[in-house]
Amino acid sequence: MKTESIVLAKRPEGIPSDDVFRYETVEIDEPSKDEIQIEAIYISVDPYMRGRMDDSKSYIQPFQLDKPLAGHIVGKVIQSNADGFEQGDYVVGMLPWQKHTNVSAQSVTKITQRDIPLYLYLSVLGMTGQTAYHGLLKIGQPKEGETVVVSAASGAVGSVVGQIAKLKGARVVGIAGGTSKTEYLTDQLGFDASVDYKADNFSEKLAQAVPDGVDVYFENVGGHIADEVMKHLNQFARIPVCGAISGYNDKGIEHGPRIQPILIKSQALMKGFVVANYADDFKQASQQLAQWVNEDKIKTKTSIVEGFENVPNAFRNLFTGDNFGKQVVQVSDNL
Amino acid sequence: MKTESIVLAKRPEGIPSDDVFRYETVEIDEPSKDEIQIEAIYISVDPYMRGRMDDSKSYIQPFQLDKPLAGHIVGKVIQSNADGFEQGDYVVGMLPWQKHTNVSAQSVTKITQRDIPLYLYLSVLGMTGQTAYHGLLKIGQPKEGETVVVSAASGAVGSVVGQIAKLKGARVVGIAGGTSKTEYLTDQLGFDASVDYKADNFSEKLAQAVPDGVDVYFENVGGHIADEVMKHLNQFARIPVCGAISGYNDKGIEHGPRIQPILIKSQALMKGFVVANYADDFKQASQQLAQWVNEDKIKTKTSIVEGFENVPNAFRNLFTGDNFGKQVVQVSDNL
Repeated sequence: MKTESIVLAKRPEGIPSDDVFRYETVEIDEPSKDEIQIEAIYISVDPYMRGRMDDSKSYIQPFQLDKPLAGHIVGKVIQSNADGFEQGDYVVGMLPWQKHTNVSAQSVTKITQRDIPLYLYLSVLGMTGQTAYHGLLKIGQPKEGETVVVSAASGAVGSVVGQIAKLKGARVVGIAGGTSKTEYLTDQLGFDASVDYKADNFSEKLAQAVPDGVDVYFENVGGHIADEVMKHLNQFARIPVCGAISGYNDKGIEHGPRIQPILIKSQALMKGFVVANYADDFKQASQQLAQWVNEDKIKTKTSIVEGFENVPNAFRNLFTGDNFGKQVVQVSDNL
Repeated sequence: MKTESIVLAKRPEGIPSDDVFRYETVEIDEPSKDEIQIEAIYISVDPYMRGRMDDSKSYIQPFQLDKPLAGHIVGKVIQSNADGFEQGDYVVGMLPWQKHTNVSAQSVTKITQRDIPLYLYLSVLGMTGQTAYHGLLKIGQPKEGETVVVSAASGAVGSVVGQIAKLKGARVVGIAGGTSKTEYLTDQLGFDASVDYKADNFSEKLAQAVPDGVDVYFENVGGHIADEVMKHLNQFARIPVCGAISGYNDKGIEHGPRIQPILIKSQALMKGFVVANYADDFKQASQQLAQWVNEDKIKTKTSIVEGFENVPNAFRNLFTGDNFGKQVVQVSDNL
């Protein structure tokens, strides 16, 4: 059968322009033995993918030119040639940006719990939830009564970080852009305070929001937002470094105040991490996260765009601050 | 009796000028009960003291204006009014920059092992040795066969870091300024390679010296030297941040490439530390270090300047790269 895919036409400079993406019609066969054929339903777009579009050494291989882009996708089994999978099953896995795909059954996970919206397997019950969980608890290690600050706090990772920190008894301050996001944090998610980084007096507002200093700073953005938070670090502060989205589209290397004197002064720990390294604990974390979601202790917000043709735009919105909550694209109504 | 002290006359800008220090004649009484009177023999000058000269919040209180500066000193007991101390005993402790001082006996440590030069209690058997030991082993955690890079490698901390790393089976690369220092590292201390940061081709030479990348970077200097090392971090690299001497005398905040993307890319850990936090393990570390020194497994170099009047200059030399090895000032011949 024929299907459509989105390939990397060229490597982007800055925010990816239209000609970075190319739609192609491809032919796929029947699934081989132990394979299943999947129809993509929800495609996840995530900031880390920008790094894979560059041709540079990192913890994950770059995307290849003229090959499909890829990411986490929730799909439906259309045809199964593998034990344990039947037509109609739903799965989640790292799959190409393609409407239909044949994959080895081992490379995807069957979704068994159906009382939770499917797209949450791309966020709180998927990679971003795992990222929040392990980064916060294993590196940040918030203690009761401590102050936890999280940037990009209304985003897929940040919103879960803040809510888990609350569950652990911390005072939680979220940084986000614009009042609709900051109000969401305090009114809907139970954050103790939130600060709008787009406001003129961001620096003062942040200082007011952390009267006892900062014990954990969950870093999603880098740039001048991070610089301001660093001014308030308490002794033995911990900084899980999850992302630095402010610089992802820069051509050169972004400069800022050197970190060494700050780390010495506060005897702080800063650690970059990639969620894949906590794979051994994914199952346990999944169960805990699903329980919290079911008990409404973790609330989520998903921004769903429709249409396979809108995947590139949805991806770009991650870098403009225009999205709100976890961004997914629904590419099929075959639910 | 009358004695002399060096007080902080004003807070410095940049490298402390002469008028930052003022010599004063002070009167001291007989030691009270549980006190001892000490004559200073060796005064240690250390880069961290520069931070205490500023009036800013840090892990340690700032020096007070018009009060004596202070630091680690080896002295001789002139008069004792405390149990367990006799005239002629040698002690080490945090004491004012003063020729004679009365202190509580509890605030100093008696030196019992006399087959080791006394001034080594200000370096390898004192604070700098402890700094090297705990920073490297507890944060750096070098494993056999890994590459350890240390900056300011011929200095009091760096030279011990490199030698302990060798004892742990690592490949050790030292960064220092000038060929006499770099040759000392490889010829005398057994480093596997050394790189001269003052050389034009520093960047290339460093790359050649770390063909397998960098697993541990023991940070003493910050600045552009650190930037170059960061380009070679391996996955899961560890960076104990001990010092950032390149910026200690800067009036403003030094800028450089932002660290967040680097830490994510290599999933690296960076941690500022202050040796005082490892106080529980000082005794065990002291014994180990003394053993290594006695067995000639750790070699040391001490630069001894003579005369109480030369303390400020000896301190300043720490920031110009002119000193070589641990800098101490001998202020009395009463050995």
